[in-house]
Amino acid sequence: MKKILLSILLIIPMSVFAQDIISIGSKHAMFSKVLDEERPYWIYLPPNYDNNKFGKAHYPVIYLLDGDTNFSLTVGIHQSFTRGMYNTMPECIIVGIPNTDRSRDLTPTKSSLIRDGKEMFTKSGGGENFTMFLAEELMPLIDNQYRTNGYNILIGHSFGGLLGMNTLLHHTTLFNAYILLDPSFWWDNKLMYREAEETWSSKNFKGRSLYIAMARDKDKDNDPQKHSNIIGQFCENILFSAPQNGIKGAWKYYENEDHGSILIPGIYDALRELFKGITLPVKKLPKHPELIKIYYKQLSERLGHTFIPDEEMIDNIGNYVLSTGNIESALEIFEYNLQNYPDSPNALSRVNNTKTN
Amino acid sequence: MKKILLSILLIIPMSVFAQDIISIGSKHAMFSKVLDEERPYWIYLPPNYDNNKFGKAHYPVIYLLDGDTNFSLTVGIHQSFTRGMYNTMPECIIVGIPNTDRSRDLTPTKSSLIRDGKEMFTKSGGGENFTMFLAEELMPLIDNQYRTNGYNILIGHSFGGLLGMNTLLHHTTLFNAYILLDPSFWWDNKLMYREAEETWSSKNFKGRSLYIAMARDKDKDNDPQKHSNIIGQFCENILFSAPQNGIKGAWKYYENEDHGSILIPGIYDALRELFKGITLPVKKLPKHPELIKIYYKQLSERLGHTFIPDEEMIDNIGNYVLSTGNIESALEIFEYNLQNYPDSPNALSRVNNTKTN
Repeated sequence: MKKILLSILLIIPMSVFAQDIISIGSKHAMFSKVLDEERPYWIYLPPNYDNNKFGKAHYPVIYLLDGDTNFSLTVGIHQSFTRGMYNTMPECIIVGIPNTDRSRDLTPTKSSLIRDGKEMFTKSGGGENFTMFLAEELMPLIDNQYRTNGYNILIGHSFGGLLGMNTLLHHTTLFNAYILLDPSFWWDNKLMYREAEETWSSKNFKGRSLYIAMARDKDKDNDPQKHSNIIGQFCENILFSAPQNGIKGAWKYYENEDHGSILIPGIYDALRELFKGITLPVKKLPKHPELIKIYYKQLSERLGHTFIPDEEMIDNIGNYVLSTGNIESALEIFEYNLQNYPDSPNALSRVNNTKTN
Repeated sequence: MKKILLSILLIIPMSVFAQDIISIGSKHAMFSKVLDEERPYWIYLPPNYDNNKFGKAHYPVIYLLDGDTNFSLTVGIHQSFTRGMYNTMPECIIVGIPNTDRSRDLTPTKSSLIRDGKEMFTKSGGGENFTMFLAEELMPLIDNQYRTNGYNILIGHSFGGLLGMNTLLHHTTLFNAYILLDPSFWWDNKLMYREAEETWSSKNFKGRSLYIAMARDKDKDNDPQKHSNIIGQFCENILFSAPQNGIKGAWKYYENEDHGSILIPGIYDALRELFKGITLPVKKLPKHPELIKIYYKQLSERLGHTFIPDEEMIDNIGNYVLSTGNIESALEIFEYNLQNYPDSPNALSRVNNTKTN
């Protein structure tokens, strides 16, 4: 008995203040047969994910490479984008994928580089394997354990952007949207460029979105082989020159950002562009509640995937419309919410209360 | 004994997985005599704050109004800005101040507004009291409990920006830098404007920095009394028209941001501008290690406060310089680090190892 008590007491010091921790997610791990190793993954869930007041929603998923390093930033931007009545993107599940061997997993081919007299990236070339881990193990596990809606976004920086491009080229439909931040397109004598050159314009990228952010490399402004020149040429000559292949998206050059600082405006701009048109014209809704459906229909058509508005946001909007005295409009909005979330106690009671009042 | 064991077991379920939580800070509370209530505050500490490998550094403090809502975003941006060898700002302590009664605490005068037939802000006017809470209770407590360096930054959005402006006007030296995001300068018939009009140009704002971000209010583009027109006129006619008073800083209009979405680019741009010149020209340092001191001297002079570079960053830079074979330069850099952090075991061993090799 004393032994048990002692072991329990030993656990407590590191855990008893859990309620005072400011949490943005949880850490998990799985064993990957493909990679033959234990892989950590980090999860952010929307604030109402387990809130029984609302219906059981299904969410898009953001898969974030370099998942530990970029987790707090991505969650911070996402939380700021999904607040109140004016959201800039839908509530998402965020899956951060920390590295175990970055240059092995994120490079599509074996290639090396001599830097400061040392051979670098001698263990490179595991990218295809890593994508298989995503496709056959991690993504099925996430879809199985969480309520996902089938819309998947990949965010990758540097080597992560290289992995993203390789996935878009060779496993096109694995993700719906690819956000590549200063991707390492110089890799292996411009491998991505060479591979895309032949196939890009004739392939079918329908329903795929691609956003590329390119930083300035001040130290090499006059070098034609510099990183950003390669990205720029690739974007201009190939990636965004063949709209007939169905690809949607944009690329942007950030004159004042370097390879590291580009993360914040890059993620910010890409998510904003990807979901543009999602922000509802709230002030017009008391007279024109039908605009909500129209906006989401347009968004769904543009992205090739059905999106329905977050329940709590529509609930807030319904209450706002109610406060302006437009009861018919408010009822229409609450009924739309109940139609989207038929198991929601909150949506049901809003409809009933609005009908009786 | 059984009773004790039972109570312990009851505590465990909510706390035992603390090690799996992704934490960005901790929640605390204090009793404020000034406000006669319990006040929560949230704390983010730099990653090496308790790392015994390094010296005991002292940090600038960011005081963040609406501290819960904006905490994850501010921490995310800050973490992204303080990584590797190319930082964009120094490591800071972040103190989030959640609201208990927002419109009471953040408004400097009692004023009301009729909106949709309802009288709003009937309990307004507690701003001076709230500033006194900051000055006499919260800030001394933070300075007492944490290793602060005396440089204090206030970030406020909307009413928080109004509180910031009132503090700058009437308690000028309380903060060194004021970052105001779409501040509510319309408050009380343009109170801030009226008060500043008379005193702004003749006051002494030496060492104070002011950054103002202004959003677009699409619904009111043609209304001369609209929020952003008032901010723009105030900035143009008064706040940034009297450089002789010593104020430093800038304001910026964001055509594509609304009152909510302005937070991300507003905080990002302001912190970047405030600390511009801090990013070291790393590639030049192997030949010119003295540039580190020059850069920090210039930064300190511009901001009117002594800043020394973060120890781990300089340690990384020293190692990079060492890897280029410039041992003398590396030694100079490690010695500078030891001079800044004389109690650092790491800095001491770097100096010794570099000397013997």
